[in-house]
Amino acid sequence: MKAISIGLLGLGTVGSGVVQIIKNHQDKLMHQVGCPVEIKKILVNDLHKTRSAEINTQVLTNNPDDILQDPEIDVVIEVMGGVEETKKYLQSALQSGKHVVTANKDLMALHGSELLKLASENGCDLFYEASVAGGIPILRGLVDGLASDRITQLMGIVNGTTNFILTKMSSEGLAYEDVLKEAQELGFAEADPTSDVEGLDAARKMTILATLGFSMHIDLEDVKVSGITQITEEDLRYGKQMGYTMKLIGNAHREGEKVEVSVQPTFLSNNHPLASVQNEYNAVYVYGEAVGETMFYGPGAGSLPTATAVVSDLVGVIKNLRLGVNGRSAVAPQYPKRLKDDSEKYSKYFLRIHVQDEVGVFAEITSIFAKYGVSFEKILQMPVTKNETAEIVLVTHQASLTDIEDILVELKDLSAVKEVKSSYKVVRK
Amino acid sequence: MKAISIGLLGLGTVGSGVVQIIKNHQDKLMHQVGCPVEIKKILVNDLHKTRSAEINTQVLTNNPDDILQDPEIDVVIEVMGGVEETKKYLQSALQSGKHVVTANKDLMALHGSELLKLASENGCDLFYEASVAGGIPILRGLVDGLASDRITQLMGIVNGTTNFILTKMSSEGLAYEDVLKEAQELGFAEADPTSDVEGLDAARKMTILATLGFSMHIDLEDVKVSGITQITEEDLRYGKQMGYTMKLIGNAHREGEKVEVSVQPTFLSNNHPLASVQNEYNAVYVYGEAVGETMFYGPGAGSLPTATAVVSDLVGVIKNLRLGVNGRSAVAPQYPKRLKDDSEKYSKYFLRIHVQDEVGVFAEITSIFAKYGVSFEKILQMPVTKNETAEIVLVTHQASLTDIEDILVELKDLSAVKEVKSSYKVVRK
Repeated sequence: MKAISIGLLGLGTVGSGVVQIIKNHQDKLMHQVGCPVEIKKILVNDLHKTRSAEINTQVLTNNPDDILQDPEIDVVIEVMGGVEETKKYLQSALQSGKHVVTANKDLMALHGSELLKLASENGCDLFYEASVAGGIPILRGLVDGLASDRITQLMGIVNGTTNFILTKMSSEGLAYEDVLKEAQELGFAEADPTSDVEGLDAARKMTILATLGFSMHIDLEDVKVSGITQITEEDLRYGKQMGYTMKLIGNAHREGEKVEVSVQPTFLSNNHPLASVQNEYNAVYVYGEAVGETMFYGPGAGSLPTATAVVSDLVGVIKNLRLGVNGRSAVAPQYPKRLKDDSEKYSKYFLRIHVQDEVGVFAEITSIFAKYGVSFEKILQMPVTKNETAEIVLVTHQASLTDIEDILVELKDLSAVKEVKSSYKVVRK
Repeated sequence: MKAISIGLLGLGTVGSGVVQIIKNHQDKLMHQVGCPVEIKKILVNDLHKTRSAEINTQVLTNNPDDILQDPEIDVVIEVMGGVEETKKYLQSALQSGKHVVTANKDLMALHGSELLKLASENGCDLFYEASVAGGIPILRGLVDGLASDRITQLMGIVNGTTNFILTKMSSEGLAYEDVLKEAQELGFAEADPTSDVEGLDAARKMTILATLGFSMHIDLEDVKVSGITQITEEDLRYGKQMGYTMKLIGNAHREGEKVEVSVQPTFLSNNHPLASVQNEYNAVYVYGEAVGETMFYGPGAGSLPTATAVVSDLVGVIKNLRLGVNGRSAVAPQYPKRLKDDSEKYSKYFLRIHVQDEVGVFAEITSIFAKYGVSFEKILQMPVTKNETAEIVLVTHQASLTDIEDILVELKDLSAVKEVKSSYKVVRK
């Protein structure tokens, strides 16, 4: 039987992993798909760079057309990253009837719907399991589960860098800057960590997850994002006292036909399944109407985990190819986009406030909350530390985002309030 | 397009869930599989029992042949339970070319290989996702992951009853008997809980998981089983002091080509992903050579979660049916069965020993371990409680099962040892 020909765009860590897995598991792949799988061409920047012994330099090219225009190539695997140029390559591949497997979250978050539509029009598969939480088969889990259930909530720890940093800050009582430095030395954070620590990377993944999970086209701009750079050791210490763990949580929540999607630092109660996801690990918690709570946990990145997801997608493409049923991966969203207003977004909040140590301040503060009908789950008033400053830490019951924002404005206007040090969402199990 | 006809064997809680899901999600199912799905007949014991309004009594029958011999029925869904009679029904269905979806772990653990072979011979699908950890798509996860990885370890909390009991014992400091009673009142434990609390139910599920995960035919008799009935509050209290959580762990471990499968009460270090799985929830932790650690978490039982898994399998069968590719679900085991000898099974152990409070006893005890080359990670000697009895709690480094068993025999022979109160495996992350 004729071999399936692959064109690989990119030969970085994930690309090398794909080459290695296809080489090492040739027998298993053959057993699964019934034909050999062969990497015919690999697009690289530098033809002359030293490569590992596993790479046959004959297959390297620096001309994308050697892959995109080769009629013998059945499947293009994209692991080169980047957005605009890469999009053009994949469009060209799909237009030539080639199936595509990509690990590119940036591309899928920004142009996923457009590319999936193009794939569908050309009878091609476009699979992207590796773009979200590399080693966790979450997209397949969602698709399978969706057949007979409707998803209410997707909560994810989908960025390994920030989870590593928060885990270290929490377990060792260290400051953000110190842990970031360590993470960079260990290779868990980039030299420029902005996209991770500001929550953008997580927001891209949540866009992909929410679009698929709710069958509703969610744009990156719909995601309310804040990162972890403002989190202090004090915040984590107070959280710990209250039985909370701080995580950067991507939260996609549906109530009726309206949804909200956010990425925010969040205190989880310690018994929440996501609270114990540590270090660089990722996890996605899914709440379905029928099935209830499920959670998928695993490595979010890394050469072999991500390459494993890519090869699983490749197996899916080849099975479809052999059955002649490609081009069904793009299911048009079943529901029109409807986003919640801020007044419909409810959460509990943790607030830490520095106030003048004066008689009556406490009453002044609590009366603002009372005005908005927001009550408290917990209030701690700390002894005065220095400069006649007292610290108040409180956790509210459910409050709308508009109410909390108005409350914060009013608090800051109080002469007795020196500073609102922090405000975070709180999620209890 | 012609509807797919289903015959349902059994209409208990899971069967009713299946009826409800197929009814409520008819549009989605149609969207996924491209044709209507219809329940044509339901086998029940009692035709005249009062049923919920959703059941059309016209489709009820108490004659299995109305389903098994009806040439119009494409798929048989088995949710009636039982082993010998049920096996005959499914054999008859497969021999008539009907595809089968079953939620029956007892049947699959005992006769899975035989039934899968029969399915394959008749070009039929036999899917059984719901038989292990109802709401968790673990079997599909294993099959997908297997394409490009090789599994080293499967560790599972696969019995909700025992996990509920251990969670309560641990969090509330209660005795086994008291918690069992509460679990029975809440419906989390059967009136006769033997198969759950003695670990047999978990062993059946581990048989299914290990057979699939290692691609090796594992029999129920190959699983070393012990249950939770001997666990005391004291054990849990000491474990907690040491940072351990007690779980009934199904463990399937491969080293080279040899495997071991066991179900045993096990102390997990609190940072192990399985340690935070609470109450009636299930989880399966999978270690693959390429992907590393992953974990699947969710409800292990319940009407709708289990029914959701059944319907997901049904969707798989119908997709194959429409593509004409059924009968490939039974992949013959790739590896011959090779089990580890006890001398090759290594673990850390927690031992709790009551001894005479005499000079030299401690040295006597530790010298026995030294003789077998087993060293300690931790030793606690407790103050004398009563009757001149001192308590020694120790955690060993890795020791083989044969060595630990020999050590236990020698300990019991010591005149100064009053009783070995408990011995459990310890797994650290």
